[in-house]
Amino acid sequence: MPIITMTTDFGVQDGFVGVMKGVILGIVPEVQIVDLSHHIPPQNILQGARLLRRHAGYFPPGTVHLAVVDPGVGTSRRPLAACINAQFFVAPDNGLLSPLIMEARETGNKAEIVHLNNPAFWLPTVSHTFHGRDIFAPCAAHLAGGAQISNLGVPIDDPVLIELPQPGRIQGGWRAQVIGIDVFGNLATNLSADTLEADRLILKIRGETVSGLAASYGERNAGELVALIDSEGFLEVAVVNGSAARRLGAVVGDEVLVDN
Amino acid sequence: MPIITMTTDFGVQDGFVGVMKGVILGIVPEVQIVDLSHHIPPQNILQGARLLRRHAGYFPPGTVHLAVVDPGVGTSRRPLAACINAQFFVAPDNGLLSPLIMEARETGNKAEIVHLNNPAFWLPTVSHTFHGRDIFAPCAAHLAGGAQISNLGVPIDDPVLIELPQPGRIQGGWRAQVIGIDVFGNLATNLSADTLEADRLILKIRGETVSGLAASYGERNAGELVALIDSEGFLEVAVVNGSAARRLGAVVGDEVLVDN
Amino acid sequence: MPIITMTTDFGVQDGFVGVMKGVILGIVPEVQIVDLSHHIPPQNILQGARLLRRHAGYFPPGTVHLAVVDPGVGTSRRPLAACINAQFFVAPDNGLLSPLIMEARETGNKAEIVHLNNPAFWLPTVSHTFHGRDIFAPCAAHLAGGAQISNLGVPIDDPVLIELPQPGRIQGGWRAQVIGIDVFGNLATNLSADTLEADRLILKIRGETVSGLAASYGERNAGELVALIDSEGFLEVAVVNGSAARRLGAVVGDEVLVDN
Repeated sequence: MPIITMTTDFGVQDGFVGVMKGVILGIVPEVQIVDLSHHIPPQNILQGARLLRRHAGYFPPGTVHLAVVDPGVGTSRRPLAACINAQFFVAPDNGLLSPLIMEARETGNKAEIVHLNNPAFWLPTVSHTFHGRDIFAPCAAHLAGGAQISNLGVPIDDPVLIELPQPGRIQGGWRAQVIGIDVFGNLATNLSADTLEADRLILKIRGETVSGLAASYGERNAGELVALIDSEGFLEVAVVNGSAARRLGAVVGDEVLVDN
Repeated sequence: MPIITMTTDFGVQDGFVGVMKGVILGIVPEVQIVDLSHHIPPQNILQGARLLRRHAGYFPPGTVHLAVVDPGVGTSRRPLAACINAQFFVAPDNGLLSPLIMEARETGNKAEIVHLNNPAFWLPTVSHTFHGRDIFAPCAAHLAGGAQISNLGVPIDDPVLIELPQPGRIQGGWRAQVIGIDVFGNLATNLSADTLEADRLILKIRGETVSGLAASYGERNAGELVALIDSEGFLEVAVVNGSAARRLGAVVGDEVLVDN
Repeated sequence: MPIITMTTDFGVQDGFVGVMKGVILGIVPEVQIVDLSHHIPPQNILQGARLLRRHAGYFPPGTVHLAVVDPGVGTSRRPLAACINAQFFVAPDNGLLSPLIMEARETGNKAEIVHLNNPAFWLPTVSHTFHGRDIFAPCAAHLAGGAQISNLGVPIDDPVLIELPQPGRIQGGWRAQVIGIDVFGNLATNLSADTLEADRLILKIRGETVSGLAASYGERNAGELVALIDSEGFLEVAVVNGSAARRLGAVVGDEVLVDN
């Protein structure tokens, strides 16, 4: 069965996600639909882009990733589909696909991108406020059902790209940022483990200092503030069996200074 | 594959929804199960009825909509199944299906309704507090699997119907109500766009005034309070990239006065 | 189609659950994946164990229950798979499966348990912080796809078992505990209805007294504090159309004294 993932800021109370699935199943009845997240902070394109980039690669080739964080719904912002690394992405043209497109370009992979301007693949009636249901869901369903991406719209090569915050070199180390906080209160940073020497790391965040890297949460004592490498290979700050976000009052964007 | 949607006030923390899916899959293994919402406010039949009415039509014919908001569980309130517009509905007889049944009757469509009183289609043991698992889920599964609705119980024609709040004509316009608030804080009203002249609308809610209709959120500035037509064709009040509910302190039931 | 259920403390905002489903679908494309709950309180093994024990039996034989509440991730705690009552369970060795294993042993059923130490069934790269994705999900998928449990690892018979709180006999009755609070604020206790005489029950909790058992919520008046037998056959304390947890300020672990 083909796979469609969904990433939105719609929450799950109002049925917006469910009705998109109804539209999908009307077009491609035999499909696996997987919720990646519907709790992207409202209109937070950067968090949606990061989540999609982080998880997409664990899905099989041919997966269609449907992502709708869409403050510009109803304006002239373009709806897009893209084929990157043998997977498909359907999203508004507002930067949601930036990390994937930029990464593909940096590594010399081809990112085939089309402007979804063929209404034959939309619902017959399109509202001004819910393109997730009326345009994005049906286009994703048609792709999952085998439609050629080139039939859904015209090729473009100027997608909106947004800059993600990058760590900077400073004397004796790095100035990095907190770029995400998960449900456990773990703080994800944008500093790749590849650049770090584990045995001589000292990290400063919100006035607290952590020395050295833990290999896992469980090797330290409950309540201890630790630095470790997360499951994507980036530096993370955590409290064992607790919440680093609550302990530090940390928020996305916080500075993390690393002596290394 | 047949489709079953689920609408409940069970939340998702306790496994109540999951166990209903276990019961369903034991009866009809090849089925698409779609969550519409499990976050209907507890025992709020009206909100459940509205959500079901709003989204059901986007699903394919034959879909079984399973809805359990059931303050009367364990009493003599009847469990029902209905066939309306080539879709099936399974729910307690407390008004959850009112909008769909009333609409079918107004438009001359037949709504076939049965009292689910044939225990052959229930779980062998029925608790007093969880008919969702013990009666409604197995009946929905049997319908999805091809059982005839007439075998599940005896026909009735006196389902419980509840009145939904309707807008009233006042001098120079309408007195409408806020009937729902979505996750973005957008305020849905019960005033249909069909009755409105867009270019001369003035709207008052909670002491604030909005003039004119926006075509979409994105055409106005962030933070602006706007009126627009929602994706179901009704008047909506929103704050661009913000929450009208928070800005106005609005709640379901609030009066909306419209000069038109 | 085979069935995999998921029970975690991962929440649904971060995509951790979705990415595990991506891994599963890469191994076994035709599968029904059912969320039991992703809102187990963080690291609360006891609540996860209770939820799994409560609902598993409603799923068909052959179902694979994947449970990850895993404060010891990355340490030497073993990943396990078990076959109990013709169903499969995949979980860390920290007590999550205790009630099921102990119950199987008490009733003379065989619980086949293996230490998942065969990396051929894991993802090629295993992180230190996300074994849900890298070990547990692929092993569950292989079991759902028909792999023999004995191929996934070596047999063990010393799984970690944790004691669940049990009610105690006192003069003229029982001292029981609140062991769970559901989304409606109903209080689940650990006192089985089998041991109770319904017509002469007096219950005390947090300074309030309830006399007699109600058959269902709906037979009493809204706002009334009632005792009744829940859908699993245990004593429950509830407020009709309200929240007993809020009314009483009750928490898990509260004492419930029953004269009977």
